[in-house]
Amino acid sequence: MKKIHIYEVGPRDGFQNLKEFLPTEEKLRIIGMIADAGVRHIQVTSFVSPKAVPQMQDSNTVARICLEKYPDADIFALVPNLYGAKAAWDTGIKTISYVVSLSKSHNKANINRTHEESFTEFAKIRESYPDLRVSLDLSTAFGCPFEGKAETKTVVAFLKDYVQLGVQDVNLCDTVAVANPAQIREVIAALKSAYPSLILQVHIHDTRNMGMVNTLAAIECGIDKVQSTLGGLGGCPFAPGASGNLATEDLVYMLNEMDCETGVDFQKLLEAAKYEKKIIAGGTFSGHHINIKSSSCQISA
Amino acid sequence: MKKIHIYEVGPRDGFQNLKEFLPTEEKLRIIGMIADAGVRHIQVTSFVSPKAVPQMQDSNTVARICLEKYPDADIFALVPNLYGAKAAWDTGIKTISYVVSLSKSHNKANINRTHEESFTEFAKIRESYPDLRVSLDLSTAFGCPFEGKAETKTVVAFLKDYVQLGVQDVNLCDTVAVANPAQIREVIAALKSAYPSLILQVHIHDTRNMGMVNTLAAIECGIDKVQSTLGGLGGCPFAPGASGNLATEDLVYMLNEMDCETGVDFQKLLEAAKYEKKIIAGGTFSGHHINIKSSSCQISA
Repeated sequence: MKKIHIYEVGPRDGFQNLKEFLPTEEKLRIIGMIADAGVRHIQVTSFVSPKAVPQMQDSNTVARICLEKYPDADIFALVPNLYGAKAAWDTGIKTISYVVSLSKSHNKANINRTHEESFTEFAKIRESYPDLRVSLDLSTAFGCPFEGKAETKTVVAFLKDYVQLGVQDVNLCDTVAVANPAQIREVIAALKSAYPSLILQVHIHDTRNMGMVNTLAAIECGIDKVQSTLGGLGGCPFAPGASGNLATEDLVYMLNEMDCETGVDFQKLLEAAKYEKKIIAGGTFSGHHINIKSSSCQISA
Repeated sequence: MKKIHIYEVGPRDGFQNLKEFLPTEEKLRIIGMIADAGVRHIQVTSFVSPKAVPQMQDSNTVARICLEKYPDADIFALVPNLYGAKAAWDTGIKTISYVVSLSKSHNKANINRTHEESFTEFAKIRESYPDLRVSLDLSTAFGCPFEGKAETKTVVAFLKDYVQLGVQDVNLCDTVAVANPAQIREVIAALKSAYPSLILQVHIHDTRNMGMVNTLAAIECGIDKVQSTLGGLGGCPFAPGASGNLATEDLVYMLNEMDCETGVDFQKLLEAAKYEKKIIAGGTFSGHHINIKSSSCQISA
């Protein structure tokens, strides 16, 4: 049995897109249901400016309560800068995701920095918080809306400085859902060859119905850490519809069926997703199981 | 470049579930858009009792017009019995899909026959119409709601009599969407080993978000004929939501991106899917591209 580590990032990547503030107690209830289903890695919030992302204004509270309630789980958060790293560290968080886009224009649009500025900030975080584990979230790793398809050699070259500065974990994010399985395999093979000790993760969106096929392609290349969001909540306010991440419960169902060991109870996770969908009426959910109304199709040609 | 043959079955598997009659001219318009996008294999209707499936009451007209308008395309239809085979043959159709379920209880529920009765009927069709190419649609090939997961050896054993009677084409249908990629690979490997000259197809539903991953698994086992429905329209009236087949345009997008040769224009096909969704307001569409409202996501973390 192959062990696959499920990284639930919905409380950050899903919630951050909601226009209406989701009360802290609802966030905590959903996180609780996720933890109760057996997920051991949960990105519970992000430490960003409350002006930029009002939804995340309760990051301190959410992080502190989760760390206390789930001492055996890997409770982590996204941060875009040194300020966020400090805030995360002060709550007791030991692992952060630091986001940078492979695409220069997307990096500028998303976090208003040049590549050089992003690297300098990363170096400052490493220096100031040497005991903080920093996973590099490489956004637009497979392509971006401004610059098109990413070249594999560009991905390899981009990571060189970060690896030299000691980064151990890189999360390949298909931010705008343009990857395909052939590309996933090519990029992972190139990175394994260039940086054999790097620990890779994937974070795949399901906008074009390739969330599952790309995630499985990565797993079959040896990746054992995969990110997804409960219900497939997420995506981008400018692309309504099926624009979210791969739905965690859909992924868990497949992996459990394929005799992978996820440690996650599918039925409990599906209940959590249904609860979330009920609470977040305006959300866009790309998951499929969540839409099945009867338990099975009785007759079909 | 690997050539993949796209078999569009939406005008049968999609339309048959619609409660309201879709006017014949609309059916023909949608089929026309599919053909115009470059799809060369189209299951345009089924020859079934109009009492059982009133939606298909115009099968004669639809088949005759399509055969005349698209002489270079493979226009085919589903039939459940000798009566349907005669009706299809009389329109000029040269290829039919004859449906039988691997699961005894599903065969009974779906077409009210025992396995023996289904085989006898198949033999009659072969005898009466030796020049009609009969593809065997093996429903519930991977599992069924009544009998659970199908065993691979059961699939192999089931097909023996049909192969001995000269069947050349078998379409493995994941009718209720319970297959996973490992099972797909196992079944295809077993069938290739047992019946090396058999031409296999797959017909995968996307109810559990595994339409793409299962279809690609089959393609990577050497299958080059795959069925899907425009927009992902289809499924079963008892399972609303994302219960349809894999969406043809989603599949074509992925294959074109992976440098497979489909001969299909993705943009034209997507326009056809959007048109269909507009016309069929009450339909359930499992496709993802069809839900993307803006052309791309501009900013996303």
